[in-house]
Amino acid sequence: MDANTAYVIDTFFALFAFVLIIFMVPGFAMLEAGLVRTKNVTAVLMTNVLIYAVASMAFLLIGYSVAFGDFGSDGMSQWAAVLFQMAFVGKVINIMSGGVSERAKILPLLAFAVIMSAIIYPIVVNISWGTDMIDGTILDLNMYDLAGSTVIHSTGGWALLAAIMIMGARKGRYTKTGGIRVIPASNIPLVTLGAFLLWIGWFGFNGGSVGSISSIENANAVALTILNTNTAGLAGAITVAFMMYLKYKKLDITMILNGALGGLVAITAGPDLYNIYQPILIGAIGGLLVVFAVPFFDKLRLDDPVGALSVHLVNGIWGTLAVGIFTDKLFLDQLKGVVVVAIFAFVSSYIVLFIINKIFTLTADDNTQLEGLDVNECGLEAYPEFKRAF
Amino acid sequence: MDANTAYVIDTFFALFAFVLIIFMVPGFAMLEAGLVRTKNVTAVLMTNVLIYAVASMAFLLIGYSVAFGDFGSDGMSQWAAVLFQMAFVGKVINIMSGGVSERAKILPLLAFAVIMSAIIYPIVVNISWGTDMIDGTILDLNMYDLAGSTVIHSTGGWALLAAIMIMGARKGRYTKTGGIRVIPASNIPLVTLGAFLLWIGWFGFNGGSVGSISSIENANAVALTILNTNTAGLAGAITVAFMMYLKYKKLDITMILNGALGGLVAITAGPDLYNIYQPILIGAIGGLLVVFAVPFFDKLRLDDPVGALSVHLVNGIWGTLAVGIFTDKLFLDQLKGVVVVAIFAFVSSYIVLFIINKIFTLTADDNTQLEGLDVNECGLEAYPEFKRAF
Amino acid sequence: MDANTAYVIDTFFALFAFVLIIFMVPGFAMLEAGLVRTKNVTAVLMTNVLIYAVASMAFLLIGYSVAFGDFGSDGMSQWAAVLFQMAFVGKVINIMSGGVSERAKILPLLAFAVIMSAIIYPIVVNISWGTDMIDGTILDLNMYDLAGSTVIHSTGGWALLAAIMIMGARKGRYTKTGGIRVIPASNIPLVTLGAFLLWIGWFGFNGGSVGSISSIENANAVALTILNTNTAGLAGAITVAFMMYLKYKKLDITMILNGALGGLVAITAGPDLYNIYQPILIGAIGGLLVVFAVPFFDKLRLDDPVGALSVHLVNGIWGTLAVGIFTDKLFLDQLKGVVVVAIFAFVSSYIVLFIINKIFTLTADDNTQLEGLDVNECGLEAYPEFKRAF
Repeated sequence: MDANTAYVIDTFFALFAFVLIIFMVPGFAMLEAGLVRTKNVTAVLMTNVLIYAVASMAFLLIGYSVAFGDFGSDGMSQWAAVLFQMAFVGKVINIMSGGVSERAKILPLLAFAVIMSAIIYPIVVNISWGTDMIDGTILDLNMYDLAGSTVIHSTGGWALLAAIMIMGARKGRYTKTGGIRVIPASNIPLVTLGAFLLWIGWFGFNGGSVGSISSIENANAVALTILNTNTAGLAGAITVAFMMYLKYKKLDITMILNGALGGLVAITAGPDLYNIYQPILIGAIGGLLVVFAVPFFDKLRLDDPVGALSVHLVNGIWGTLAVGIFTDKLFLDQLKGVVVVAIFAFVSSYIVLFIINKIFTLTADDNTQLEGLDVNECGLEAYPEFKRAF
Repeated sequence: MDANTAYVIDTFFALFAFVLIIFMVPGFAMLEAGLVRTKNVTAVLMTNVLIYAVASMAFLLIGYSVAFGDFGSDGMSQWAAVLFQMAFVGKVINIMSGGVSERAKILPLLAFAVIMSAIIYPIVVNISWGTDMIDGTILDLNMYDLAGSTVIHSTGGWALLAAIMIMGARKGRYTKTGGIRVIPASNIPLVTLGAFLLWIGWFGFNGGSVGSISSIENANAVALTILNTNTAGLAGAITVAFMMYLKYKKLDITMILNGALGGLVAITAGPDLYNIYQPILIGAIGGLLVVFAVPFFDKLRLDDPVGALSVHLVNGIWGTLAVGIFTDKLFLDQLKGVVVVAIFAFVSSYIVLFIINKIFTLTADDNTQLEGLDVNECGLEAYPEFKRAF
Repeated sequence: MDANTAYVIDTFFALFAFVLIIFMVPGFAMLEAGLVRTKNVTAVLMTNVLIYAVASMAFLLIGYSVAFGDFGSDGMSQWAAVLFQMAFVGKVINIMSGGVSERAKILPLLAFAVIMSAIIYPIVVNISWGTDMIDGTILDLNMYDLAGSTVIHSTGGWALLAAIMIMGARKGRYTKTGGIRVIPASNIPLVTLGAFLLWIGWFGFNGGSVGSISSIENANAVALTILNTNTAGLAGAITVAFMMYLKYKKLDITMILNGALGGLVAITAGPDLYNIYQPILIGAIGGLLVVFAVPFFDKLRLDDPVGALSVHLVNGIWGTLAVGIFTDKLFLDQLKGVVVVAIFAFVSSYIVLFIINKIFTLTADDNTQLEGLDVNECGLEAYPEFKRAF
């Protein structure tokens, strides 16, 4: 294939992958809107819309240069490369914003989104995928992380952990006697729709991260990546379904969908490196980790309404380490990447959120939480004509 | 075009088609979740999620080899070919599971899904599209069925017919005096969303079934296929709308959307063979068949909450025969294909379902049906905060 | 790249763009279903389904020839070219139908859709993009309008203005004392989902309008177009969010999403001509225009439940003129295009709607509006099991 044809095909392929990733915007929005109570649905949707807007804009104007230096790209249109990278950034913040749903005020969250998109996440990209501002130093990372188990999912997860530690739990979630109040999801079709839009977006996320499809080798790598991505999601769902049924004789759909997402996060570091059977194990463990992590974080009173810590942080770590276990990449390189990104993402997010919290207060007050964030933050309810059962 | 370029483009195209087909997963899920009563919505969604999971996994591990022998493919990445074929299998089961909604217990259905995906459907594929285990025998099929009017839709429909015969109707659907209780769809926006996601998925289903886009001839065939697919859907919708208005002065949206889907099923056997006007007739007849088949099956007390028999079975047959009527393919070959697949799919499904029913009982008991499957099967309601009108 | 490869890639790319645009069908359907009251949701969905059906069919059978003369295309499959153009036509009518929601009877609207798709819109296409039946006359248009700020959005907007003038406001919307009754959206998740499906469709709409991706220059143009399209949407959302917060301390999500759509309409005339920063200004002004136009049209008692005049008409004009301001295209050519299309689209739509209104009456009577169009037009409610709060 001549270079022009490759340029055209790789540009087209990057645009295809970009579009698939953008389906994750309504994906996250629907998933979270379905998981929260009706009184907080509009606020969650508004948060998702505005995070997409400000995070993408901040990354376009500032973050991309921090991560990659300039807009250059040789093998495809530079603008396709920018679009593809820009599509990632909103996801990092979405991971974080979902986990502080039902109590986070929108504007302070957006302030954090700007800083995260313009500086914190781009630095993570730079040291992991980019021109490496720390090249040659002791922090030089050789972690293999194709589509961001660590760079995207753990980074978002560490920011979320910092946010939950600063903001505390939702009013009424944990009782003084140590009890945990179950808060059921308000709209299961939206949860399911959102999960599948995310799943589909993942094909673009991971497939596109191969970076080129314009040779037989790359075309095979892209197809294998998408196949393995899907398989890990299947395995996560099946494993959690099996465990739920064994334990409760009930198939808890939100847990099972989170199991699928856990599998998808876990495979993301190296879907191109595995044979077609290894993702079954990696995704199954990903699902298991969700099942155990959800009550674990609740025990620590880290209140996460959508299970984002379990899905993204825990499985982001697991997926990155799995590359060091199942492939010829060095485990220590993977571990070092996990640790360095963990320290940087957590500490920097904590500091920024701490400052924002001092200035604006991140958490809505108790009355607002009781009444619902929709009326206070957005001035309208999500389903005004539907009578509430409670 | 050189062979490498063709390989790359066909791989990319197969992945594109695969992704479109996967939109049918939320498509079926939303369609069915909208058509059933609120008390069964979570169970329907859970069924769709787990069917996608177990059917894809069973096909990847076993079914693909039964159908095609091995993972080889010369003109594109073998993994892209596997993904494309794997995307089909869940649809076959979805067709079946939708029609037994509101009464089917999830786990026995999954047991059937595994056997259907690993053995029954792959055998149908093998004798219709594959290396033909019956080549040279009297059963040798020469049926032309580009994207599966028979292989996918009728096969799923025959399995559904077997399931309905074994499981019986929903509690309260048919009265002892011969009356039919109308059970209205609970969420029309979800029905509409689901129908359009299916429609969009069909472009990948039929377009991708051309198998290659990497020559002028193939590119034309793919584009014509997608155009004709769409036209048949349009014609199905318009025809049913016209009939509904003539008969009732009302535009029944669920019937009209099923008319569109009926047209889409009908065109699926030969969208690449028709001129751009024939699909209007084929789709219109497809819509008509839905209008007449829905009350016909109700008269036979075959209770099918989503109209899947009318859409998929009846139009799968019609679409396959239409190829023998409107093109130079032999009608007898088409008929023979319809009959052979009918016998094999119905009998094998019946036997497997019969055995599963003996072991696990396929149908939920009357109390569970009355209370709704959501609480019993999944432990949670789909819309817990919304007060029910009845 | 050889001509065959270019033919294949451009066909594939046009099909990709076509599929993205078709996501706008459920996009408009969900957006409008979420914005209207629950009692009119089915009617709105039915309208969207049938407009897609009849408009596409009329364009395929008649309109395409009016616009382009014949089905010829040299650089790609003619059927891919037809599909791409056909995907546009439903949008023009959707713009119009959305703005007369909650009072428009479906059948007369479909009569208009047929004439609009077969004749009015194709003539606009012809004089703007086509073989130019008015070439060499004083009306000869040299307007640059890549993807239809004027040809699609203003045209639909002018038809809507004519329709609102003939049909009047919804019963009870404007009081005799000059008050305006606020009618809240019934389902915010659907509004959000719809807006994002539209947004994603826009990538195909604008990107595909470049017409080819098969050279380095064209690949760059497509990627730049998609980047700039997205940026304008971001800027529209951010600007409106900023204004809403300054004015009301609330983030009004429907207004903010309409701001994003306004930015997307505004960029549509020339996304390939701008640098990557100009769309920020163009989209921001697009958002501002929505904020000011919505109350302006209400002051004129032009009742538009979804804000389509503000989003599509006002920003269609702004976007077309912006090309004359920010690029080297002549402002007067842009202005002339806006005016000629305005006169033709408004006058012809007005005449056709006037005649249809005389024969069938376009507006549902007061009782029907009070009871809701769903029961009267479609015979079923959208959410029958959900108890209404009012």
